[in-house]
Amino acid sequence: LNEFEIIDQFFLRKSYSKPGWVKVGIGDDGAVLAAHEDNDLVVATDTLVSGIHFWEESSPVNIGYKSLAVSLSDLAAMGADPDWVLLNLVIREADSQWLENFASGFFELADRFDVQLVGGDTTCGPLSITVTAGGWVPKEGAITRAGAKSGDLVFVSGTLGDAALGLEVEPERMANLPSLSRIHRPEPRIRLGQELRTIASAAIDVSDGLASDLTHLARASGGMGAVVDERLIPFSDNACSLKPRDELLLLALSGGDDYELCFTANPSREKAIVRLSGQVGIPITRIGMISETPGFWLIGSGGKCKQYLGGGYQHQWAPDV
Amino acid sequence: LNEFEIIDQFFLRKSYSKPGWVKVGIGDDGAVLAAHEDNDLVVATDTLVSGIHFWEESSPVNIGYKSLAVSLSDLAAMGADPDWVLLNLVIREADSQWLENFASGFFELADRFDVQLVGGDTTCGPLSITVTAGGWVPKEGAITRAGAKSGDLVFVSGTLGDAALGLEVEPERMANLPSLSRIHRPEPRIRLGQELRTIASAAIDVSDGLASDLTHLARASGGMGAVVDERLIPFSDNACSLKPRDELLLLALSGGDDYELCFTANPSREKAIVRLSGQVGIPITRIGMISETPGFWLIGSGGKCKQYLGGGYQHQWAPDV
Repeated sequence: LNEFEIIDQFFLRKSYSKPGWVKVGIGDDGAVLAAHEDNDLVVATDTLVSGIHFWEESSPVNIGYKSLAVSLSDLAAMGADPDWVLLNLVIREADSQWLENFASGFFELADRFDVQLVGGDTTCGPLSITVTAGGWVPKEGAITRAGAKSGDLVFVSGTLGDAALGLEVEPERMANLPSLSRIHRPEPRIRLGQELRTIASAAIDVSDGLASDLTHLARASGGMGAVVDERLIPFSDNACSLKPRDELLLLALSGGDDYELCFTANPSREKAIVRLSGQVGIPITRIGMISETPGFWLIGSGGKCKQYLGGGYQHQWAPDV
Repeated sequence: LNEFEIIDQFFLRKSYSKPGWVKVGIGDDGAVLAAHEDNDLVVATDTLVSGIHFWEESSPVNIGYKSLAVSLSDLAAMGADPDWVLLNLVIREADSQWLENFASGFFELADRFDVQLVGGDTTCGPLSITVTAGGWVPKEGAITRAGAKSGDLVFVSGTLGDAALGLEVEPERMANLPSLSRIHRPEPRIRLGQELRTIASAAIDVSDGLASDLTHLARASGGMGAVVDERLIPFSDNACSLKPRDELLLLALSGGDDYELCFTANPSREKAIVRLSGQVGIPITRIGMISETPGFWLIGSGGKCKQYLGGGYQHQWAPDV
């Protein structure tokens, strides 16, 4: 059983007793709740476990930064304006130096987005961190995974595969290759997400590889599929200098931890998206299209279309960690 | 460093950049956030770690129940009406039987309070569970720890010490002593908390022992203290049949996991509280008074008043678990 099967089998309930109130429940980047006559509340949560999502010996500054970044990335994918955050910290021991560094990384990012730490829990145990973030969208303004239509174009922000490639590169070399340090310090695409509210038909953050995440988006949008032209997938110059394109492609499709936004839009919005890319200073690349045929399809270098069955990145399901 | 010192040193910031918006931040049972012209949002979160808060071999039905109960108990202490919940599950392996039982305990309690599971995260790692609950109070209606005045009476719901005593009793005997099974299945005092909004001056849920939790409440209320008459502390008949009163007293003062509400009120409200006890069907006992002298003071069986320095229950801060 993988994460999605567990949710489906044990935790997903088809009906809510308060249907109007939960606007989006389990199965999107965040939940959307009716809260205010003008705004909806978006909440998202992620747990990072030592040995699975980061190395126990990683810099606590980076662990603090990343533990907040991944939840903010979920809010970005919903188009939400982040506002408050809860921090649940499970630590083996109360090491002051570690805690101070963890807090400095956490607050560095919190301060940039003016997010307030309003509560949490601290307990002892094997190192893991849960961050729950809350934010707001204008009423009915949240971007979900479910709005894509057949014929919508598929876009992605930034470059893909850098984080997965970073996992393969020795730490000393990585220090000289900033784009590969994204494994430690992903950038939540908050402003981009907010601007996409009125442009995108659906969005998701790319955390488990493009193939897996875009398939989720397409499936959530009424059982659609996606066709991606592999020649259009954007890679960083650093990545291209380290690996041939076909290897980078696998990292982008099935690697993890990119935390870029993948979104869809009606073709009529393409010019607005080009303009937006300039406004927010983030490259945005059109990579494909939503289709009525389910599944994830790749147009290869020869122009032929094949189904990609490689699946997504699963943080290792280890019997003992 | 204990939990409270960690929060103080590394995570508590004295000023918020959006002061009107965060009504109650770190340091209460939950955070209170301005959300709506009529209602405030209350969020609370707790992490339970295997080997610290429950035994790995405990019934997963009970683990599911308790992981939700402890967060709902925090909402109860704030007087909130619980509405939605997020579940972050870290499990070593995807054992269908365990998951099914966990979900049945979780949803048993969720359904009783009409709380909707709207999202979460599932990942692999050493077993731990984080539940984050959201609820609503009428605007400015949240009960905090900070409102007690000198001369206010101190009350407690139910009976104390049963959970701590349950830890000492063999499982076979416990099955015949339902009140001691509270270690596994605490009852969140949701309805009582809501009724107390207009009656209590301050409230807290008793999770780390009465001495510790009431001291927190008194200190948060402008540096006050509390005087408790040990002869008035309520114990269950089961507990009294198993231990002498002086041993039970230590369990109530410094044991954990009671999840009863401790609250304060102006003496003029005592009759209303007696009436409320009957309405909600929960015993409520007056046990003491708030005083201007800081600290936790006990009036003993001989009528003498002594400071109690035993501290609260700290879930073991283990170097390796």
